Amino acid sequence: MAVKMKDIADDLGISLVTVSKALRNHPDISLKTRERVAARVQELGYRPNLAARSLVTGRSMLVGFVVPDLMHPFFADVAKGLSAVLREKGYFVIISSSEEDPELECKEIEHMMAHRLDALVVASSQSSAEALAPIQQSGTPLILLDRYFDNFEAHFVGSDDYNAGKIATEHLIEIGCKRIAHIQGPDTSPGSRRLKGFLDTMRKHGLEVPPEYIIKAGSGDVEGDEHGIQALRTLQSLKRPPDGIFCFNDVIASGVILEAVAQGIDVPKTLAVIGCGNLHSNRLIRVPLSSVDQRSNEIGRRAAKLILDIVQAPEGTKPAGTKRVVLQGGLVVRASTDRGGISSRPGKKIGKG
Amino acid sequence: MAVKMKDIADDLGISLVTVSKALRNHPDISLKTRERVAARVQELGYRPNLAARSLVTGRSMLVGFVVPDLMHPFFADVAKGLSAVLREKGYFVIISSSEEDPELECKEIEHMMAHRLDALVVASSQSSAEALAPIQQSGTPLILLDRYFDNFEAHFVGSDDYNAGKIATEHLIEIGCKRIAHIQGPDTSPGSRRLKGFLDTMRKHGLEVPPEYIIKAGSGDVEGDEHGIQALRTLQSLKRPPDGIFCFNDVIASGVILEAVAQGIDVPKTLAVIGCGNLHSNRLIRVPLSSVDQRSNEIGRRAAKLILDIVQAPEGTKPAGTKRVVLQGGLVVRASTDRGGISSRPGKKIGKG
Repeated sequence: MAVKMKDIADDLGISLVTVSKALRNHPDISLKTRERVAARVQELGYRPNLAARSLVTGRSMLVGFVVPDLMHPFFADVAKGLSAVLREKGYFVIISSSEEDPELECKEIEHMMAHRLDALVVASSQSSAEALAPIQQSGTPLILLDRYFDNFEAHFVGSDDYNAGKIATEHLIEIGCKRIAHIQGPDTSPGSRRLKGFLDTMRKHGLEVPPEYIIKAGSGDVEGDEHGIQALRTLQSLKRPPDGIFCFNDVIASGVILEAVAQGIDVPKTLAVIGCGNLHSNRLIRVPLSSVDQRSNEIGRRAAKLILDIVQAPEGTKPAGTKRVVLQGGLVVRASTDRGGISSRPGKKIGKG
Repeated sequence: MAVKMKDIADDLGISLVTVSKALRNHPDISLKTRERVAARVQELGYRPNLAARSLVTGRSMLVGFVVPDLMHPFFADVAKGLSAVLREKGYFVIISSSEEDPELECKEIEHMMAHRLDALVVASSQSSAEALAPIQQSGTPLILLDRYFDNFEAHFVGSDDYNAGKIATEHLIEIGCKRIAHIQGPDTSPGSRRLKGFLDTMRKHGLEVPPEYIIKAGSGDVEGDEHGIQALRTLQSLKRPPDGIFCFNDVIASGVILEAVAQGIDVPKTLAVIGCGNLHSNRLIRVPLSSVDQRSNEIGRRAAKLILDIVQAPEGTKPAGTKRVVLQGGLVVRASTDRGGISSRPGKKIGKG
């Protein structure tokens, strides 16, 4: 038989209202009484019925997180940072996956919203924000993560993807690459911003980018290494194959390296390869992979802090407008771009990462 | 202003009770009425208040899943299978991580239970079931995943870890290894069962296992590759280093291969290496890694089906006792054990995997 709030009240000879207020740390209740209630709660193993409390406080203590792929280490690491910070304040994260499918994403959000979330974090696979507008109208704080939309005002936490493209491209140019290709990500803001960072940097250095050097790789999910394999085959079939490739992410870059080794191409001498995300596994693969560290765990932690700022703000003091938290990444050089020149310290972090 | 159940009732000229029953697919309500209600719900964008409904039905539509590590691809894949099946029936999975810390696990469970879960799935880091007993007493269905406890009766879904140890060890013996070491996992059932499968198989083949050939690697989390590196250094410092290693999991095995390559050891000729789990990344690493496929996604799906059987059983027909679902894995041979002999077809699955 579960212990009820009334048992605690009877036991301490105080009213049910006092116990209820004490449990919510209401200022009406003295610290001493709050401590007595807390001690009794501990002793009796009382578990507050959060479904009932949710009706009273309007808070579910649940934060939803829709990720495009549970298997992608980037989102796993973001989720880890997000959960760690929210957990300390008693909030739980419901994670669900859209499998990079915009339609499934809408259904997931629809289901999640039925749970009266205190906040919803979405790494969206939509190509426009149309489907996300109703969330904001419903009053549930919406935090876009990793991916944002032009002309859609919402909280955002993510990387400076334009700068990530710039850092990776400048590194390839610095080690002597002249014919640099880009394996492009999905049509989300990271995909288009990294592409723009790449193109602008190439232009700035007076380097040509023939159209066949931009390969569309599809989504960067767990099967992304297969996209990398296919993309390298296409690039190697060109009359003038590239001498450097900037890949949208590390999973794609891993596939490129797998295929390069299979074709007997010397990485980094004949072909230098750099990814983005700085996955833990980068040091384990055939040729250890250079990358731009996105600080994925920190992205999750910052998102959690933003949520706490929003939901814990006292009535009437809610911050106006939306907040953008943009983290700067840093270059991590490993063997895949280590040509023994100036940036040749393997595993050395360069920049703010 | 949110649409309420009453708006739908008024709109259709039926009672609130009828709408409520229709939304729960109550047999009192005709199919035609249920369809009319469903159509109106769709048009008006009504979202049932699940917090309120939970008080009526006693169901939260939430399933908790405590994993030891969000970053470990095995648990990410299990979570994916679990979520996919439960989602179809409107259930959501709350994932949280214990970081392989038994004390944190207790706190996570405590918090989760406050949410009135319909079921709790735990891949436990405890060394005994003491902390899990109160869950069963509370009446919330408990499903142990991947790890079980002797003398603790509970639902279980996981691999046949004894057989995994046997399959891996027999493969190493078959390709000619004589001095086989084992890098042991944590003190959970997979760790002890794989060890026992290894030891029994070695004994059956009359092969000696000196005590220094059993290395304790600590927990198999994302930093497990570091454990593999350290373990190989210890083994290589022996007077007679092993010619084969069965590693508790693929992450540890990846570290062993990284260190073997660094030391200039020929894998698989001088040293054959096999892991367990068959991670997607196995084909990407320095020497592609042989493994025992645990069918992680299927473990998640089976756990979901078991949960649905339990929570959707009509009153009075709940299945008595507990259920054990034990999946058989299969051998997957790659370069790390491919010595050109009988089991030399790289990537070829052998067995039931």
